[in-house]
Amino acid sequence: MKTITIAVVQFTPQFGKKKKNLARMQQLVANVTADIIVFPELCTTGYFFQTRDEVAMAAEPATGPAAEFFRNMALEHQAIVVAGFAERAGDSLYNACLVVVPEAAQPWVYRKTHLFYKEKICFDPGDTGFFVVKDARRGVNVGPMICYDWRFPEAARVLMLQGADVIVCPANLVTTAWRKVMPARAIENNVYLAVANRAGSEKRQNEQLTFQGESAIYDINGRVLTAAAASGDEVLQCKIDPRRARDKAFNALNNVVSDRQPQHYKELVMRQNF
Amino acid sequence: MKTITIAVVQFTPQFGKKKKNLARMQQLVANVTADIIVFPELCTTGYFFQTRDEVAMAAEPATGPAAEFFRNMALEHQAIVVAGFAERAGDSLYNACLVVVPEAAQPWVYRKTHLFYKEKICFDPGDTGFFVVKDARRGVNVGPMICYDWRFPEAARVLMLQGADVIVCPANLVTTAWRKVMPARAIENNVYLAVANRAGSEKRQNEQLTFQGESAIYDINGRVLTAAAASGDEVLQCKIDPRRARDKAFNALNNVVSDRQPQHYKELVMRQNF
Repeated sequence: MKTITIAVVQFTPQFGKKKKNLARMQQLVANVTADIIVFPELCTTGYFFQTRDEVAMAAEPATGPAAEFFRNMALEHQAIVVAGFAERAGDSLYNACLVVVPEAAQPWVYRKTHLFYKEKICFDPGDTGFFVVKDARRGVNVGPMICYDWRFPEAARVLMLQGADVIVCPANLVTTAWRKVMPARAIENNVYLAVANRAGSEKRQNEQLTFQGESAIYDINGRVLTAAAASGDEVLQCKIDPRRARDKAFNALNNVVSDRQPQHYKELVMRQNF
Repeated sequence: MKTITIAVVQFTPQFGKKKKNLARMQQLVANVTADIIVFPELCTTGYFFQTRDEVAMAAEPATGPAAEFFRNMALEHQAIVVAGFAERAGDSLYNACLVVVPEAAQPWVYRKTHLFYKEKICFDPGDTGFFVVKDARRGVNVGPMICYDWRFPEAARVLMLQGADVIVCPANLVTTAWRKVMPARAIENNVYLAVANRAGSEKRQNEQLTFQGESAIYDINGRVLTAAAASGDEVLQCKIDPRRARDKAFNALNNVVSDRQPQHYKELVMRQNF
């Protein structure tokens, strides 16, 4: 059995204090040995932007200092590092996450597909779609989605169909419904799922958001392998066997991928508004 | 507020004893007043067919005596009746369910899309796809799926996208993972969900299946409104407001239908086998 180790870092970014946030993340993983390390959404900048101009000030390209920081971390830990950041690309601004593989020349960048609340004012909708990073060296295929993507079964589904063994989900979750749904994402797709949520709260312009913590790693049966408290910084670690996610059969006659009947799913890709 | 009442009938069909099963169902709903009554999968015949020939002997057309029985029940109770049955149509055999609207000349027939275990030997895969029955008189749109369809988020999703307020799910569930996933089906689609599972067990050719009961009705937030025990016959009833399922917005900026980004979901309708 070839297992790998996933680490999920729950922490409390401070809004606008990028240098401090990077230093804190460095400190939290100092003694971590893992194959994959997952940080929360927008972990470098904090979350609750009010305007596009605010994002423009804080955002950086996928070749900027945050990307360099996480690349150095990936090299030092010899781990895949997944971390949310505010990305500037030309005139566009994205709520994005880096997937840094130590051996790869460039990081992958996933741009959040489904925008939540004031992100719609501050960011552009992601244009990368869903993709999977296949790391033959570590023997694991990693599929990123970000926070509110959880609400759409299509997100995790498309990642699984592209071969994800582990779905990694940097998050800044402010509601709690996800706790009922994340296990389903693991079960329905027969994949591992690592949710790196942030803790703490942010008050901007008299509106306060409280982030719900409880970061968790789920196995392919939706069981919680390890979970964090509702508040506070914490590093979760556990071992998983990616090959368990690749066997989609659960009896002699059923396989949750080949049992799909896509000819009856056409409505899923037609735009329908209510 | 215009609420309607759903009734879910959990009972224990006896294999091959159609007459007895119909009589028992009649008895169970004798004092029920409801707008929708949902019975389990294959409730007229029992479940654990071993061969196609066995099904051929037990199956009947959608104009047969079982359909007539449920039509009479729908007229008597002035309720939409949903009930699983073994359907023969020409040379084809389907694990199907009737959706009988008292005012409609014909019943709708949904043929199970995703076949479980030995159903693959005994039945043809359903060719109807997913559809929604819209009943303006009762003010409710009902979308049927059957048992193992739960495992595929596409099923409930396609029903919601076609306007289902309530997903009705006749079932003969022999595992328990569905209990973690059904609430997610309600939450992700913002719909009510009524699962009519059967109880008891069936032993055929030295293989025994035990059905897990715990039929349940979920609200749009995935909360259990009412649930049955793991064994035994029971009629669940509760009131729901279908209009709550039609408002897909949950804050000033987010709506779980219009937030979908189908341009990134194309993999869902491409056939992919592992």
